[in-house]
Amino acid sequence: MIQRHHLLAAAMIAAPALFPVAAHAEEGMWTFDGFPAAQMRAQYGWAPDQPWLDRTRAAAVRLTGGCSASFVSDAGLILTNHHCVADCLADLSTADNDLLGKGFRPASRAEERKCPGQQAEVVTAIGDVTADVKRAIGSLAGADLVKARDARMAEIEKAGCPDMVKTRCQVVPLYGGGQYKLYTYRKYSDVRIAWAPEDRAATFGGDPDNFNFPRYSLDASFLRAYEDGKPVKPAAFLKWNPRGPQPGEATFVVGNPGSTSRLYTTAQLAMDRELRLPVTVTTLSELRGRLIRSMEESPEKYREGQEELNGIENSLKVYIGRMKALNDPAFAARLAQAEADLRSKSAGNAAIGDPWADVARAVDASRALYLANRYMRPSSSLYDYARTLVRAAAERAKPNGERLPGYTDSALPLTEKVVLDNKPVITWIDRQSLEWSLSKAREYLGVDDPDSKLLLGSESPEAMAARLVGGSKLGDPAVRKALWDGGQAAIDASTDPMILFAKKLDARDRELTRLTNQQVSGPLTAAAARLSDARFAAYGASVYPDATFTLRISYGKVDGWMERGKPVPPVTTLGGTYDRSTGAEPFDLAPAFAANAAKVDRAVTYNFVTTNDIIGGNSGSPVLDKAGTVIGAAFDGNINSLGGNYGYQADVNRTVVVSTAAVNEALRTIYPSPALLAELNGKRSR
Amino acid sequence: MIQRHHLLAAAMIAAPALFPVAAHAEEGMWTFDGFPAAQMRAQYGWAPDQPWLDRTRAAAVRLTGGCSASFVSDAGLILTNHHCVADCLADLSTADNDLLGKGFRPASRAEERKCPGQQAEVVTAIGDVTADVKRAIGSLAGADLVKARDARMAEIEKAGCPDMVKTRCQVVPLYGGGQYKLYTYRKYSDVRIAWAPEDRAATFGGDPDNFNFPRYSLDASFLRAYEDGKPVKPAAFLKWNPRGPQPGEATFVVGNPGSTSRLYTTAQLAMDRELRLPVTVTTLSELRGRLIRSMEESPEKYREGQEELNGIENSLKVYIGRMKALNDPAFAARLAQAEADLRSKSAGNAAIGDPWADVARAVDASRALYLANRYMRPSSSLYDYARTLVRAAAERAKPNGERLPGYTDSALPLTEKVVLDNKPVITWIDRQSLEWSLSKAREYLGVDDPDSKLLLGSESPEAMAARLVGGSKLGDPAVRKALWDGGQAAIDASTDPMILFAKKLDARDRELTRLTNQQVSGPLTAAAARLSDARFAAYGASVYPDATFTLRISYGKVDGWMERGKPVPPVTTLGGTYDRSTGAEPFDLAPAFAANAAKVDRAVTYNFVTTNDIIGGNSGSPVLDKAGTVIGAAFDGNINSLGGNYGYQADVNRTVVVSTAAVNEALRTIYPSPALLAELNGKRSR
Repeated sequence: MIQRHHLLAAAMIAAPALFPVAAHAEEGMWTFDGFPAAQMRAQYGWAPDQPWLDRTRAAAVRLTGGCSASFVSDAGLILTNHHCVADCLADLSTADNDLLGKGFRPASRAEERKCPGQQAEVVTAIGDVTADVKRAIGSLAGADLVKARDARMAEIEKAGCPDMVKTRCQVVPLYGGGQYKLYTYRKYSDVRIAWAPEDRAATFGGDPDNFNFPRYSLDASFLRAYEDGKPVKPAAFLKWNPRGPQPGEATFVVGNPGSTSRLYTTAQLAMDRELRLPVTVTTLSELRGRLIRSMEESPEKYREGQEELNGIENSLKVYIGRMKALNDPAFAARLAQAEADLRSKSAGNAAIGDPWADVARAVDASRALYLANRYMRPSSSLYDYARTLVRAAAERAKPNGERLPGYTDSALPLTEKVVLDNKPVITWIDRQSLEWSLSKAREYLGVDDPDSKLLLGSESPEAMAARLVGGSKLGDPAVRKALWDGGQAAIDASTDPMILFAKKLDARDRELTRLTNQQVSGPLTAAAARLSDARFAAYGASVYPDATFTLRISYGKVDGWMERGKPVPPVTTLGGTYDRSTGAEPFDLAPAFAANAAKVDRAVTYNFVTTNDIIGGNSGSPVLDKAGTVIGAAFDGNINSLGGNYGYQADVNRTVVVSTAAVNEALRTIYPSPALLAELNGKRSR
Repeated sequence: MIQRHHLLAAAMIAAPALFPVAAHAEEGMWTFDGFPAAQMRAQYGWAPDQPWLDRTRAAAVRLTGGCSASFVSDAGLILTNHHCVADCLADLSTADNDLLGKGFRPASRAEERKCPGQQAEVVTAIGDVTADVKRAIGSLAGADLVKARDARMAEIEKAGCPDMVKTRCQVVPLYGGGQYKLYTYRKYSDVRIAWAPEDRAATFGGDPDNFNFPRYSLDASFLRAYEDGKPVKPAAFLKWNPRGPQPGEATFVVGNPGSTSRLYTTAQLAMDRELRLPVTVTTLSELRGRLIRSMEESPEKYREGQEELNGIENSLKVYIGRMKALNDPAFAARLAQAEADLRSKSAGNAAIGDPWADVARAVDASRALYLANRYMRPSSSLYDYARTLVRAAAERAKPNGERLPGYTDSALPLTEKVVLDNKPVITWIDRQSLEWSLSKAREYLGVDDPDSKLLLGSESPEAMAARLVGGSKLGDPAVRKALWDGGQAAIDASTDPMILFAKKLDARDRELTRLTNQQVSGPLTAAAARLSDARFAAYGASVYPDATFTLRISYGKVDGWMERGKPVPPVTTLGGTYDRSTGAEPFDLAPAFAANAAKVDRAVTYNFVTTNDIIGGNSGSPVLDKAGTVIGAAFDGNINSLGGNYGYQADVNRTVVVSTAAVNEALRTIYPSPALLAELNGKRSR
C-alpha cells in the first residue's frame, strides 16, 4: 500500500515546502497551473493541452480520509483503492458480517452504505492570495507570524466559501510560503461504499509483498457520492478503459500527494535520521507486536484488528524505508550536494543571507520539543474525540481569526463531521493504543519529567488506560453530539474521564503549540521564504512545490527497472496470482479467486509499474493514458520509492498500479457485477 | 541492569579488539597483567601492589551465564547481582511457588538449589601463546587463517587442561590477534542459589528506572559453589565490608566485561549505525510488544514471561543507547578524529599499509551476509538444542583440530552441560520467539529469497512455529541426553521435527560460517593485527585491549556527574525507596520492604555511582576499596554509559553499584537471615 496521508499528522509536522534543485526525468508532482508541458514534450514528443488538463482536473477526487480517487461514471461512481475503503468496511463489519473479509457487493444502489467520516472533494478553482497573506504577515516573526498568517488564511477561506454545505475553501502555502493559493472545492459529504473485493484479493501477499513488485493485488474499490439521498452527477468523469498498458507508453497520475520533504536542509534531514525516525520505528514496532499478539487471541480480535495492523505495518515499512534512504551514503551525498550547490549559488546575496543557520536553530528547538509534542497527545481515538470536543467548545467562542487551525469557520464543518459520524471505536484496540502511548511517554520523557508526571500522576500506564477507556462514553456518537452542541457548559459539566483527562492536558497542549509556533514553525516559515527566493534566483521558476495533499499531476511511462542487476518486468498477469499462491496466509487465494479459477482470463494484466513520481496520499489516484482515459489506479510504490519523501531516484523509483483490465475481469468472472460493468463501460443499466 | 553478556552472540559478532588511542581519566578495562599502576598513582597518589592484585584476582569469579561475581566467604559463598540469578529463579519457579517473585531464602544450606546451566570459574593462570598461534597462522588468509588459528587454539587448550572436570582452558585473542593468551580456570559446575530478595526489591522502578540514577535497587543475590556435594573452600575470598562509600574515594571494579568495540573503524561504526542497530532495535521492539501483550493474558503468563521481558527490555535500552551515541555528532566526531589521528601517524609506514581499506571491504562483505547470518539461526531454545545436538554428533566424530568452535575437546564439557542441564523451556515463549524470528526472516530476507524459502518452504511462520515447538520433545532433558549420547546414529534416526529442521538448515548454516570466515573474520583478523601494530607504533604499549569476557580491573572513584546542567549526587539511601514508591507498578514497594518499613535504617547507603569503566558482562562485579574489601556489586551503568561500547566519556559515564551496606541492612531487617549475616561478617555460624 501507498501510505495514506494523515491530514492532522502532516499539519503537526509543518514541513516547509521548498524547491527542488532540478527536476530530472519524470521527477515532479506538478500543480495543474504549473504543468511543464514544454519539458514533457521535449522528452515524450507530446504533452497534454489545456482542455485535457481541465477535463482531468474536474474528474479528480480528494478523499478526506487521506486518499485520492476519480469519478468514473455520470452517476457519482468513484474509483479508488481497496485500502482506502478498508477502514470503512471494518467500521461497517460485525461479528456476523465481516465486510472487510468478504468484501461488499450490494445487489442494488439502494444497498450501498455510507462510510463514516468520509468526504469527497473536487477542485473547482485555484486563486492566488500570496500578496494578501504576505501583507498580513508583514515583518512579524515567531508565534506572531504564525498567528497573523493563520488568522488571515481563516478570513480568506470564510469569505471564499459562503456556502459551507456544498463548498470548502482552503488556503494552501506552497513553496513553504513563497506562494499562498486559495483552493475551492465542491464537496460531497455523503460517500457510500459501492463495491469492494475480498480483503485477501486486495492484500494478497500481505505485508511481505507490500511495497514490492512483481505484485498481484486487486487493490481497487468503488465509492459513490450522494447528495440529498441521490447519486451525484459530477461535472466530469473519466472514461473507463479496461485495457492493459503498453510498455513505454506515457502515463499520468492525478491525485493528492500528502507531503514530501525533498528540500529539507541538512539540519532537518539529520533530525529525521537521528531522532524522529528511530523513535517512530522503534515504538511503532512495539505496538505492532502488541497488536499481532492480541489478534492471535481470538478470531473476533483477528478480524477487528486487521485494518489497524495493516495501517501500522504499512507506516512502518515507509519509515523503515526512509531511514534506510537517509542512511544510504550515496543518497545522503546527493541531498548534501544539492544544498551545497544552492549555498554556493546564493553566496554573497545579502537579501538571502543564511537561512540554513536559521533552519538549524529552529531544528534545535524542534528537537528539544519533539518528545513532548509527540507524547502529550496520547494515541487514542477516544482521546482524540475528547480533545476535539474540549478545544471546539473553547475555540468556537472566539472570533474566527483567533481560533486554532481546524476550528475556524471554514474548517469546522469537516471537524464536526469527523467527531459526530458514527465510526465505531473498538475498545480493546483503543485501550491497547493508549496504554502503549502512555508507557512510551514515560519511557522517552522519563519518570521524573514534569510532562510525564502531568500525564500519569501516580498511575501506571496500564491502570490509567483501563480506567479512561473503560469509563469513557465518548464511543457513543450521541454522547459526542450532546457535548458538541452543549459547548463550554456541557464540557464544564462532563464527568467523562476522557474529557477530564483532555481538560487536564489542555493548557500544556496549547503551550506546546505556542512554543512550537514561536521557536519552530515561525522561524521555519520565515527561513523557507528566503530559501524559496534563493531557489528561484538560482534555478528559475520552473520547479514544483513539495506535496501538500492538494491536487497534482505527474507524468511518466510504463517501465520496469533493474534490481540487484536483474531486470524487473513492468507487468504481471492475473494468472501470476495462482502461481504465487501457497495456501498459507498471506499467500492464500481469496476464496472467489479460487472458486472461479477456471473462468478467469489469466493473460489479463493485473498490476504494472510506471515511472510516475508519487507519495502517500496518492493512493487511489487514477492512472491515465494520453487519451485521458483511466487504465488503472495507483496503489503503491516499489521498495525503492520509500526514500521518495526526500528525493526521487529516476532509475529505480516506481509507482505500482492495479489495471482497469484486471478490475474489469474481476467484475466479469470473479465477482460478477453486471450492473457495475455496464455503468463503467457506458452502457446505461437503469 | 547492565546488559548480560551472551557468549554465543559475542562469538558470532567476532568483533576485533584493537587499541584505544589514549586512555583518559578512568577509562580502561585492564588485564591483571597490565594494570597501569604508575598512571593510577599519578592520578590518585596510590595504587595497588602485586599482592593486592593477586589476592583480588584469586577471589574473582566468572559466571558462564554471562555475569561476574566474587567469593565472599570461605564456604564458597558468591556475591553477584539478582539479575544474574533471575533466570535460575525463574527456572526453579512453578505456578505454586514463584521463587522469582518471592525471592529465595533457604532455611539452611541443605535447601540451596542448583542453577541449571550455571558454572563458576576462577582464573588460576594466564600464559602467553602469541608466538605459537601466530606460527600456526603463518601467511594464511581468509577461511584458511581462521581454520588454522582455531585448530591451534583447540590443541593448546586441550594440552593445557588435562583435567577437564576441575579445570578449563581458553585461548583468548587480545588486541584483535596482536596477542593470544591462555587462560586457565578452576571451574565449579555445581552452583546453587543461596539467597535472593523479592524480584521487586531488585527491579524497583523497572524498565523506566533501568540505566537511570538516582536509583533504588537491591540488585544483589548470593550463590554457593559446590563440589562433590559440599560447599567449596575457595583459594581466596573478599572481605565483606558493609559500609557506605565516601564521595571521592578510590574504587575498583573486578569482573569480566563482555565485549567492546572501542576501536571500530569508520566502516564498522557505519555498519552498526546503519544496519545492525536499526534492524535489531526495530525487530526486538516488536518482540517486546508481543511479549508484553502475551503476559497480560493471564497471571501465569505474567510470571513466566517476566524474566524474558526484563532481558529484552534491557537489551533494547542498550541498543537504543548505542544508536543514540553513534547518532550524536559530537561523539561520532571524536571517534572519527581518533581514526584520523592514527592514520596520519601511520602514514608512510609500508608494513602497516592501509588496513582501513581492508576492514571496509570486509565490512561490505559482512553487510551482504548480515541478514542471512541473523535469520538462518532462528530464535528458539528448542532450536538451539537441536542445532547443538546435530552439530555435536557430526563434530565429535572429527579430530579435535578440525571441529567448529564450541565442539573442541576443551569446549565440549560446557556445551554438554548447557544442553543436558534441566533448564525448563516455556513452550509459549519459545513458540512466540520462533514465530517472530521466522516472520522477521521473511520480512527482511524477502519472500523470494532462497534462504527465506529454505526456512519456510510453503508454510507460514505461524503454522511452522506451532508445528515445530508443538511437536518437539527436546524440552525433555532425557530426550536430549539420548540424542547426545547416541551420536550420529541417534540424530539420523530422530523424527523430532526440530531435529529435522536443524538438519535441513545445517548445510547452509555451515556455508554461512565458511563465507563469514572467508570474507569477514579472516580479513578482519589480518587487518586488526596490522592496526594493532599501528597503534603500538603510534601510542606505545600502555593501552588496554577491547573487552573479551575475561577478567579485567578498572579503577575509578565515587563521584556524581552533571546532567543537563544539574548535579546528580553519587549516593542514594534506603529511605529514598519509600519516597519514590507510588504503589503503582513498577514503583510499588516489595512486600517485605513495606512490611518492615519501621525497622529499616533509612539513612543506609543504597546505591551509588562511580567513574569505573565497565560494560555488559561486568554485572555482579565486586566493587572494592583501597583495602581490597568489597563495598558493593556493580549492577548497571547510567544512561550515558550506553555509548560505552564505542567510547568512554569520562565526564558522564558512570557505574551504578548496590552497596554492601544496603545488602547487610536487608539481611538484618528486611529479609532477616542471621546465618548468612554471620557468614559474611566472619562469624562462623556452623
